[in-house]
Amino acid sequence: MINIVNGGVTAPQGFRAAGIESGLKNNGKKDLAVVVSDEIASSAGVFTKNIIKGHSLQLTMNNIKNEKAGGIVINSGNANACVGKVGEDDALEMCNIAAKTLGYKMEEILIGSTGVIGMPLNMDAIRKGIKLAGERLSYNKGNEAAEAIMTTDILKKEIALEFEIDGKKVRVGGMAKGSGMIHPNMATMIGIITTDVKIQSHLLQKILFNAVQRTFNRVSVDGDTSVCDMVICLANGMSKTSEIIADSDEYMVLQDAFMQVCEYLARLIAKDGEGATKLIEICVKGAIDQETAYKVAVAVAKSPLVKTAIFGEDANWGRIITAAGYSGAIFDPNTIDIYIGDVQVCSNGCALYFDEKLTSSVLAKDEVMIIIDLQMGNESDRMWTCDFSYDYIKINGSYRS
Amino acid sequence: MINIVNGGVTAPQGFRAAGIESGLKNNGKKDLAVVVSDEIASSAGVFTKNIIKGHSLQLTMNNIKNEKAGGIVINSGNANACVGKVGEDDALEMCNIAAKTLGYKMEEILIGSTGVIGMPLNMDAIRKGIKLAGERLSYNKGNEAAEAIMTTDILKKEIALEFEIDGKKVRVGGMAKGSGMIHPNMATMIGIITTDVKIQSHLLQKILFNAVQRTFNRVSVDGDTSVCDMVICLANGMSKTSEIIADSDEYMVLQDAFMQVCEYLARLIAKDGEGATKLIEICVKGAIDQETAYKVAVAVAKSPLVKTAIFGEDANWGRIITAAGYSGAIFDPNTIDIYIGDVQVCSNGCALYFDEKLTSSVLAKDEVMIIIDLQMGNESDRMWTCDFSYDYIKINGSYRS
Repeated sequence: MINIVNGGVTAPQGFRAAGIESGLKNNGKKDLAVVVSDEIASSAGVFTKNIIKGHSLQLTMNNIKNEKAGGIVINSGNANACVGKVGEDDALEMCNIAAKTLGYKMEEILIGSTGVIGMPLNMDAIRKGIKLAGERLSYNKGNEAAEAIMTTDILKKEIALEFEIDGKKVRVGGMAKGSGMIHPNMATMIGIITTDVKIQSHLLQKILFNAVQRTFNRVSVDGDTSVCDMVICLANGMSKTSEIIADSDEYMVLQDAFMQVCEYLARLIAKDGEGATKLIEICVKGAIDQETAYKVAVAVAKSPLVKTAIFGEDANWGRIITAAGYSGAIFDPNTIDIYIGDVQVCSNGCALYFDEKLTSSVLAKDEVMIIIDLQMGNESDRMWTCDFSYDYIKINGSYRS
Repeated sequence: MINIVNGGVTAPQGFRAAGIESGLKNNGKKDLAVVVSDEIASSAGVFTKNIIKGHSLQLTMNNIKNEKAGGIVINSGNANACVGKVGEDDALEMCNIAAKTLGYKMEEILIGSTGVIGMPLNMDAIRKGIKLAGERLSYNKGNEAAEAIMTTDILKKEIALEFEIDGKKVRVGGMAKGSGMIHPNMATMIGIITTDVKIQSHLLQKILFNAVQRTFNRVSVDGDTSVCDMVICLANGMSKTSEIIADSDEYMVLQDAFMQVCEYLARLIAKDGEGATKLIEICVKGAIDQETAYKVAVAVAKSPLVKTAIFGEDANWGRIITAAGYSGAIFDPNTIDIYIGDVQVCSNGCALYFDEKLTSSVLAKDEVMIIIDLQMGNESDRMWTCDFSYDYIKINGSYRS
């Protein structure tokens, strides 16, 4: 039995957080988040596959190898990327200040930066910001931290789950940011997961990776993958349950909880896609293999023509079959079925007469499900995406200014 | 010496054309084009790689195998795709009527349909339209045919070139349509090339393929590849020059003329991209191999974030380096240089301080050049694309209505 509880990343025992305005953003919004565990924790992380990597992210990729961490600092408003040596130095200093402020060693700190690329960090703001956040840390300020990592996000993204292990209550909390430049792999964004279970780092890594693959790596807002994407995780063992062993029942329960936390956050990212008015779920089934299902799902989820048609609430399924057709997947054009919500619009590759009014009413909803059945096998996959609206253009035509 | 002349597809000797309103489009615009050669011609064609193929296109892919054709019929407003048996029957009937009207055998007719997918053709309109067009055929109506193949195009796209072979004047004419759902391969669109040189079909095919690869297959408007894309070509030999032999000087001149005709039309397609306000040329150089250059060029050209930033005239080069980074190409992040027009914004993967005002003025022009120098080798490639504007959303949110 898994229940939703309040508190986000501070829901599990022994985690404090703060989110403050350091001045990095010039609109007075929160822009610096700190999450800290009372005890050193097992750590895990999944990182962008972009060949270009931000300086803060590179430092964290290195520190994650230690398998132990205690504190996390994330700034929004500046990606600390592509600025050369000064970016590396700034990442190191950020880490050093965090270590001193939070009482950990430098190699036990994980940092992340998200925002504009190619501008040096305002280190005055970072220095003061980390110290200020350190003073404000609290066992119930997960929500402030979730707010401070937002960039173009409109929705704050956090959740926490509670369930039992050994008859004792344990929790998994999570928060994420991400709205544009979102596509596997990584599914963009920065995500932080905390838990009070006791588990070794390599198992935590496995659980996190599995969850990310099926959730954050199944979100596409615009097909772009950023240089700062990461999901990092701390497990501090403070629930005092016994250590979780590979492939045990408890392991499965924890995997399930991670999957739920990540799915919740991933769907919110798609729903909150820049300028989005709808969450779209693309389900591909009947595929001959996993790769085919994935290719079709990604191509349809990425197609600007599909996304603009759904924005216009126009049941233009020709664009769905077109995207499936150029996806690179091999399938029989004469067995493909397509559904918009409950309404079948295409049978065996051929148009059906359907009720346009009914389909438009399906498309008018906040959440739209597109089902593509290739009728060739038993494999399936799904992607979450959103529609493409005028506001996407507006937001992205003037992002830096 | 190659000169531009008037006349489009009717510029070469012995080609007549017409473009008429058949009633397929409900806005009273031209929607049916016929091009016919006075004598049977060598034929060639390059077709979409989309696994889903329109019924008209499938018929033409079959007829092109005969290596000889005399007449071409293209309708706009309806793609004749994904409607099953009725679509096959309609394609056959369209071909049959064209054969009777134009005085050729059915297997000597090439047809194409472009527009909405999944709706049966209005065959009454097609029947009357082909007959009407047949009555209106003229040696100087290439421009009307070019108008009749347009869908969401704003610019009519036609050109003709004149040059000498054997001291005799010969011509190559071309027209194209294409504005949305445009990406290699095929570079969307329908293109028709005519010439009065004498050349065998297999050589014509080679010349056409080479030209298409470097031009139409280097255009991306939205990353989508349609089910009806084709470029077809007729060479009727009516200039009475001697037959062009493989790899001769004349062959090279003809290849060059095809390249110029296709490049002109391809650039126009990008410039006329749905909602576009600017033509963008992405040049990648210094790549270690061709594949690397292509991958980087395609990723940058497709990125909605790059395209919206250029619409906003915002020199957000972080998005350019990000797209290069996730392109799947392997390169050294520490040697990449980026230029926006003449202004270098990134050196060896690292931000440069640049004049924002100057860069904005470069981005304010109708044509914008982005240069990405990987500094690792000697291979290069380029793509044409356009910016993403509010109008793209507007056009595509309500395309069928």
